[in-house]
Amino acid sequence: MATCIVPVPADSPFSIHNLPYGVFRPSASAAPRPGIAIGDHVLDLSAIATAGLFNGPLLSSSCCFSETTLNSFMAMGRPAWKEARATVQQLLSGEVPTLQDNSDLKKRALIPMNEVKMEVPAAIGDYTDFFCSEHHTKNCSKIFRGEFALPPNWLHLPVAYHGRASSVVVSGTDITRPMGQSFPPTPDGKTPPYFGPSRRLDYELEMAFFVGPGCELGDRVTIENAYDHIFGLVLMNDWSARDIQFWEAQPLGPFLGKSFGTSISPWIVTLEALEPFKCDAPKQDPPCLPYLTEPFRFTFDIPLEVAIKPVGDEKKSVTCRTNFKYLYWTMAQQLTHHTINGCNLRTGDLLASGTISGPDRDSLACLLEQTSNGQEEFTLEHGGVRKYLEDGDEVIFSGCCKGDGFTVGFGTCSGFVERFARLLLV
Amino acid sequence: MATCIVPVPADSPFSIHNLPYGVFRPSASAAPRPGIAIGDHVLDLSAIATAGLFNGPLLSSSCCFSETTLNSFMAMGRPAWKEARATVQQLLSGEVPTLQDNSDLKKRALIPMNEVKMEVPAAIGDYTDFFCSEHHTKNCSKIFRGEFALPPNWLHLPVAYHGRASSVVVSGTDITRPMGQSFPPTPDGKTPPYFGPSRRLDYELEMAFFVGPGCELGDRVTIENAYDHIFGLVLMNDWSARDIQFWEAQPLGPFLGKSFGTSISPWIVTLEALEPFKCDAPKQDPPCLPYLTEPFRFTFDIPLEVAIKPVGDEKKSVTCRTNFKYLYWTMAQQLTHHTINGCNLRTGDLLASGTISGPDRDSLACLLEQTSNGQEEFTLEHGGVRKYLEDGDEVIFSGCCKGDGFTVGFGTCSGFVERFARLLLV
Ligand SMILES: [Ca+2]
Ligand SMILES: [Ca+2]
Ligand SMILES: [Mg+2]
Ligand SMILES: [Mg+2]
Ligand code: NI
Repeated sequence: MATCIVPVPADSPFSIHNLPYGVFRPSASAAPRPGIAIGDHVLDLSAIATAGLFNGPLLSSSCCFSETTLNSFMAMGRPAWKEARATVQQLLSGEVPTLQDNSDLKKRALIPMNEVKMEVPAAIGDYTDFFCSEHHTKNCSKIFRGEFALPPNWLHLPVAYHGRASSVVVSGTDITRPMGQSFPPTPDGKTPPYFGPSRRLDYELEMAFFVGPGCELGDRVTIENAYDHIFGLVLMNDWSARDIQFWEAQPLGPFLGKSFGTSISPWIVTLEALEPFKCDAPKQDPPCLPYLTEPFRFTFDIPLEVAIKPVGDEKKSVTCRTNFKYLYWTMAQQLTHHTINGCNLRTGDLLASGTISGPDRDSLACLLEQTSNGQEEFTLEHGGVRKYLEDGDEVIFSGCCKGDGFTVGFGTCSGFVERFARLLLV
Repeated sequence: MATCIVPVPADSPFSIHNLPYGVFRPSASAAPRPGIAIGDHVLDLSAIATAGLFNGPLLSSSCCFSETTLNSFMAMGRPAWKEARATVQQLLSGEVPTLQDNSDLKKRALIPMNEVKMEVPAAIGDYTDFFCSEHHTKNCSKIFRGEFALPPNWLHLPVAYHGRASSVVVSGTDITRPMGQSFPPTPDGKTPPYFGPSRRLDYELEMAFFVGPGCELGDRVTIENAYDHIFGLVLMNDWSARDIQFWEAQPLGPFLGKSFGTSISPWIVTLEALEPFKCDAPKQDPPCLPYLTEPFRFTFDIPLEVAIKPVGDEKKSVTCRTNFKYLYWTMAQQLTHHTINGCNLRTGDLLASGTISGPDRDSLACLLEQTSNGQEEFTLEHGGVRKYLEDGDEVIFSGCCKGDGFTVGFGTCSGFVERFARLLLV
């Protein structure tokens, strides 16, 4: 299976072992459609489906690849996902020659990646942001309350809040520095709050997963079945305006300090592709409640990286190296906890991990932690310092699993910080 | 305009002055479609549209009333809303005899309300819950922190959090007492949390509005234009499991304590219908920032009521009488603030007011306030006491504006508390 009818560069995150799903337009005016990344190309799944090459029992009669989002495919569940993966691996390896031998179809169905425009891959009904890193939680506590502590609930449940679904955007979308209120310059109770463009714009390196089959209101997903509801993962930047966030968040949590934009990488890497990278999850002490106790607890070893590329600079400076495996609460625990009260999940819902900080100085996954909320400067490896993000900074997340002779990568999740401009008044 | 070709009982909330929009099924197996409530009947707008009776310039070529939600109609904006209202008022008053004289169409298009099944009227992209009552905020502060105080941000911005859109249900849907974690019985840091059905289930009387035309990411709705983006209002019960909520909410706000269900009344009362009930909004001191300062500040005088009907009881006991006009922050301020950071709004988004408590003991709009978080008992007028809701309680909200000889009402928003049952495991 190492061979592929499409050339795959050695450093490509999109080998035949990966086969991540996305939604793309072949040109700006064309309709969005599902695709799979392979090397420097995108395989147009609508073309493959129209040509009748999805001939397995579950997909041969399905229209899921003729739609403009992946929702219908995601709703079909793991048997259909496995069937699609097997079919595409056979076609791309040449094991089944139907695609290889059809030069016309090959030309139509394999589009250079640099020609396509990527879209948000699913209609996202609700987006939830968790807070699963023990290191991130303790570091935030230290910064704001002076001690490395966890809230009393933290070891018993994966803390989370509802995020804004409308402003989830795909990697490459510019992020405009948001306008808003923050703490008054003089805390006398009379001076009005600061009002203007955020002065503490930050990134948060996270990963997020898409819900496949959902559950009805009143249902509850057991921990044993949780992974059957998880389609795959993306990188996520939960852009955060710290000044807006901290002023507004009492007593009901983050709101406008987050909702101006949340970027995700365009390619959803499936659990099937991540299977070789399973590893132990952190031991939980105290033991969690039975409904969150996993019969076989595991997570995934996904090395992650943040880089900042200031405007005009040739090189990007890596600012963080961390790993998905540091998270204290697993995806299964997040999903199961989300439904313990009977809350329904819908196909396409996005559940994010929270900032993935690790144990080291190197693995702090937001500038809030890296600069103690702007009290210290962070030195970029190729010159310059940052307290928070500056206009023109490009923030680039990447994640890549290296197997024995093969790679399963996420590509990048990036965004430019645009100078605040007077917003269009409507 | 007071005459109507359909008999309207004197006490009906749905006079010809009202004409609220909803989505209904004429029978359980029929497709959902838009309708207008008139007396004890529902006017099927899909039938009126198919018959060509929407003959104005904006609606004659639109398919908006053939859809299963009101989103397309809501997206068209106020000129289309005014046109639809004028057409329906002419048809129902007999001023235009097309409907009156067509007995076949009348029979098809006017369906007894007790035969239809109501649905959530719009596809809700995101649901936001504000915290706009000064009395509610101060009472909560008193209960939890011992003093009637406002957070430092409260007089400067309408505090809000993102809610769960998937579990917004229509009035009449049973609410199952949710399962979840709450504070450990012994706060020694070692005893595990309580786990089981919520023991502090509460209602919150709120109102919510639907967004008509939205705005793009990066746009900002000015305070002058805010009402152009507001289609109409419903009653809302933000069911709250206080024990789950208070345990989980540190530091990121409410999550599972709210997301098990949020009920809305089925009929959206438009701003056109509420026009006669405009009144002054509370004076704001200190003055708010310019972006929130309204050129003509007003709100609406909407008397509201909560009643509890215990299972088996004949009578309902009124537990709260309050008014929408008590809210410190107006709908225009809520919507404008929501977009100040460039956050996009989509047609069908739901923005709720927060618990509408007033200044009196009578006007406390949730049991948390009425019983000081279960420390006192609340006596029902027809017998019995409550600390929090009991299984079998029906909670019924109503709201009705009385004009000079006419009524514009919201009908009811109700729900039964179902005993916790082992949830279906999926
Ligand atoms: Ca986050
Ligand atoms: Ca509420
Ligand atoms: Mg975000
Ligand atoms: Mg709710
Ligand atoms: Ni291979």
